[in-house]
Amino acid sequence: MRQSGLLIPTLRDDPGEAEIVSHKLMLRAGLIRKVAAGIYTYLPLGLRVIRKVERIIREELNRAGAQEVLMPIASPAELWQETGRWDFYGKELFRLKDRHERDFCLGPTHEEIITDLVRREIRSYRQLPANFYQIQTKFRDEIRPRFGLMRGREFIMKDAYSFDADEAGAKESYRKMYEAYQAIFTRCGLTFRPVEADTGLIGGTSSHEFMVLADTGEEGIAVCNACEYAANVERAELQEHAHKAPPETLREKRSIPTPEKKTVEDVTAFLKVPATQLVKTLLYRADGKTVAVLVRGDHDVNEIKLKKALGATELALADPAMVEKATGAPVGFAGPVGLSGVMMIADLAVKTLTNVVVGGNAADQHWVDVTPGRDFTPERYADLRNAIAGDACPRCAKPMRIVRGIEVGHVFMLGTKYSEKMKAVYLDRQGQEQVIVMGCYGIGVGRTAASSIEQNHDAKGIIWPAPIAPFHVHILPLAGKPGAVLDTACALEAELEKAGIDVLLDDRDERPGVKFNDADLIGCPYHVVIGEKGLKEGQIELKERRTGTVTKLAPADIVSRLKELLKTALM
Amino acid sequence: MRQSGLLIPTLRDDPGEAEIVSHKLMLRAGLIRKVAAGIYTYLPLGLRVIRKVERIIREELNRAGAQEVLMPIASPAELWQETGRWDFYGKELFRLKDRHERDFCLGPTHEEIITDLVRREIRSYRQLPANFYQIQTKFRDEIRPRFGLMRGREFIMKDAYSFDADEAGAKESYRKMYEAYQAIFTRCGLTFRPVEADTGLIGGTSSHEFMVLADTGEEGIAVCNACEYAANVERAELQEHAHKAPPETLREKRSIPTPEKKTVEDVTAFLKVPATQLVKTLLYRADGKTVAVLVRGDHDVNEIKLKKALGATELALADPAMVEKATGAPVGFAGPVGLSGVMMIADLAVKTLTNVVVGGNAADQHWVDVTPGRDFTPERYADLRNAIAGDACPRCAKPMRIVRGIEVGHVFMLGTKYSEKMKAVYLDRQGQEQVIVMGCYGIGVGRTAASSIEQNHDAKGIIWPAPIAPFHVHILPLAGKPGAVLDTACALEAELEKAGIDVLLDDRDERPGVKFNDADLIGCPYHVVIGEKGLKEGQIELKERRTGTVTKLAPADIVSRLKELLKTALM
Repeated sequence: MRQSGLLIPTLRDDPGEAEIVSHKLMLRAGLIRKVAAGIYTYLPLGLRVIRKVERIIREELNRAGAQEVLMPIASPAELWQETGRWDFYGKELFRLKDRHERDFCLGPTHEEIITDLVRREIRSYRQLPANFYQIQTKFRDEIRPRFGLMRGREFIMKDAYSFDADEAGAKESYRKMYEAYQAIFTRCGLTFRPVEADTGLIGGTSSHEFMVLADTGEEGIAVCNACEYAANVERAELQEHAHKAPPETLREKRSIPTPEKKTVEDVTAFLKVPATQLVKTLLYRADGKTVAVLVRGDHDVNEIKLKKALGATELALADPAMVEKATGAPVGFAGPVGLSGVMMIADLAVKTLTNVVVGGNAADQHWVDVTPGRDFTPERYADLRNAIAGDACPRCAKPMRIVRGIEVGHVFMLGTKYSEKMKAVYLDRQGQEQVIVMGCYGIGVGRTAASSIEQNHDAKGIIWPAPIAPFHVHILPLAGKPGAVLDTACALEAELEKAGIDVLLDDRDERPGVKFNDADLIGCPYHVVIGEKGLKEGQIELKERRTGTVTKLAPADIVSRLKELLKTALM
Repeated sequence: MRQSGLLIPTLRDDPGEAEIVSHKLMLRAGLIRKVAAGIYTYLPLGLRVIRKVERIIREELNRAGAQEVLMPIASPAELWQETGRWDFYGKELFRLKDRHERDFCLGPTHEEIITDLVRREIRSYRQLPANFYQIQTKFRDEIRPRFGLMRGREFIMKDAYSFDADEAGAKESYRKMYEAYQAIFTRCGLTFRPVEADTGLIGGTSSHEFMVLADTGEEGIAVCNACEYAANVERAELQEHAHKAPPETLREKRSIPTPEKKTVEDVTAFLKVPATQLVKTLLYRADGKTVAVLVRGDHDVNEIKLKKALGATELALADPAMVEKATGAPVGFAGPVGLSGVMMIADLAVKTLTNVVVGGNAADQHWVDVTPGRDFTPERYADLRNAIAGDACPRCAKPMRIVRGIEVGHVFMLGTKYSEKMKAVYLDRQGQEQVIVMGCYGIGVGRTAASSIEQNHDAKGIIWPAPIAPFHVHILPLAGKPGAVLDTACALEAELEKAGIDVLLDDRDERPGVKFNDADLIGCPYHVVIGEKGLKEGQIELKERRTGTVTKLAPADIVSRLKELLKTALM
């Protein structure tokens, strides 16, 4: 394809609106342009990358036995009301009315629509299992759309839904999709890791996130250094701290003044103790009752775990008035010693601590040398916090490290959450009605492309893995005017295209520097540089974008060499 | 692909909701299912057809030098307000607000979005011409969604927009797209005709509709029997009637009673004259003035032509009170004789009439033997009506016939309508700012598939043209249990797929009758029937769906025969 015939508006400078490298480079290399917050136009190069990712997804899902369908974007409210998600989904759901004042939403996900189809069309065990997928534009009205295609409000997603006769079948469908996802992200050239994940809004019984490892990732992942375990920091199951501190002499607790020292930072600095030697007391309202929640000073409460531990449906931090009422002290001085009239629950890591600092339940007062079990006794200990570096792996008890990741895929075991509410049932071999067991599976297509850039770039621009590169080969004739150089370039383009290789030919009448810079920015894996001098000497330069390695070849050898290189790169 | 692994819910009976054959067969053959009025899910077979149409479109547009992009569905109101279409588009535009109460619409077409992109990214004559297309889900809140994919509210459309430096360039872009459209619809196996069309809501200076000829078509097309001329009946340019009636003796006009005869039908029946011998007088309000419009009894006023002839912006039929005020008679008795105080305009076909019937401007009275020019004189004659069968072709004056058509594509010369309003300009060779000249081009993808069914079906089901068939070959082993028959079928499937042929294998354990009926309904071009008895005799049956012709072949010959047939069919 000729570069003069494609809109590739490259930018020399980083656009102000972009914070992370993939967003910057997608704008600079002319892949996308913003239309509104979180809403983009895909320009020719960007769309080519998207289509290549889609194609890999399609091939692997077809291979796994899933069937492609296409459901509508406009989703009638009635179906969402059946599952209760019309109310539950809140402001993230784009809603609209048609000319007859009927309510619709723009689907952020399609459990309701596919379950409605299945309950109408699938009636017998003979029609199960079935797995339907679609690659479609989705909508989610994010509070903070950002990072370009990473977190958009209109975005391309692959969503799939499996339907099985029983739990064992559902597990098998889940396993197949898990494997298909590994194949997909491997083929896309990504360094990734499937991690155990929380099931969030969609609900269900088990799930894995496929995380592309990158420093700019929004998600923290606890990864075991010794075994295969990896989980979202919010999801990792933490046990009683395996690495106990060496036994200390227990000292008697003392109350000491801490004027205006309200935060963990202030108190530990003032008392010259590490945050690990402080226990925070946070007051929550859970289903109308006040609860005191204790975690170590360097730990964060995980509200999902807390909610589960309490069996609560509504959970929020208590307001200052409630804190004062419960503790007799302003916010910042709550503590477990002598606290009564509220339920007290503590994180497992608190249990083995000794001689710690806690709030004094009086303004400007803390207790020091407090020991749980002696000075206060929570009603329960439970896993209530996010993982941090050094926490024990729940599988092998070895310490874990924390890495950052970008969630590109998510597989869920849904169970019968939707099929029960929507009465998606089938008749089994005995003619008995049974509820269908479901799974659902998502991949962010644009996000997959963006996260590839996070992992594959240098100061000059993008370095595409060949399978999702907009073009495999970028031909750079160092002449824009007709002549031997351009003729050679055109002949080479034709020959490569005939061999099924995607070629971009920079036929613009631009200086070599401009062509080189744009080519590095756009990041096709192989550049072919044709200059007048080299050509006279019977030489064409082949540059590998990733390494910068330049090989000089005779024009006759270039096609076979590229075929050979791409055969490996596209495997 | 195995039929057992695809959801193809065929129906024995015509579904009540469907009126036309393509809608019935799309439901019966399990291609689509309704989610809401005018909103459908594409099941695996339906989606395969859509994707094949899309692929043909893509190939031809790329060949024509257009570049593929993908714009967002959610369109910010500001852009639509710039062109005035936010107000003008009315209820057909689906509108919504985001969480910050900002207005968006769901794009029914994308002139605003692409023009906004172009005004930002294209600055020089060196970047022109450019032609951008996308294949995308569009939204239009039709009053009466119907006929399945023919007139949906959410539908897949290819839209393209050309940008040129001047009118001559725009014409060349238009010509290229016109030719690409001919190639596309030809490759889709359709019988179609490009016709001159009115430009409707989008506006512009010239346009053609690509009409698939079918009795169920919503559009009337005037087609010349002698030359290539074809135009929408509303658009056909009609001239003074070329075939004048033989000269008649002019008689003196007489007023006669016509008690309660108000319609053309009633009056002509009562007076025993043909409708061609009557002149209707319709009263309109045009920009606040009353206008009497005269057309022959068998002709219909075309309000678009009338509006143009009057140079009016607002046009509506006058209400009964106004009619009575202007004519002194109730509705049904208006006539030109003695009518004063209103402007009078007559269709060209009225000019050469003699001895006609007209209203008497008094209750229950008509004039007979009235002759224009003698008994009344309109201020102007103009082309004010829709074409009917027998009208003279504007090119060659030979009589035209009227056929029905389905609009599957539309090409428009837009001129500078959008680029002026949105200030899409470029610098020419002399560094002077010039307004970009635009064109726009649409194809209804689902409608193209549906109209193919309108043209290609029989009592048993669909007969797909090979290029857009969901599968080229349908293998029907007359056994669902393992054995030689199924083994042969599977081996054949593998061999055909290896040759790049799309194969559906009916591996279901169903009776032969069920398999045959489903196969005819689904309508793949070639059926391969493998039975136990035939197999023992070394024979497999190859049936051509369209003709029903059955050929018996040795298993070894079937692949080469199919390759040969498809080579022709897919050309």
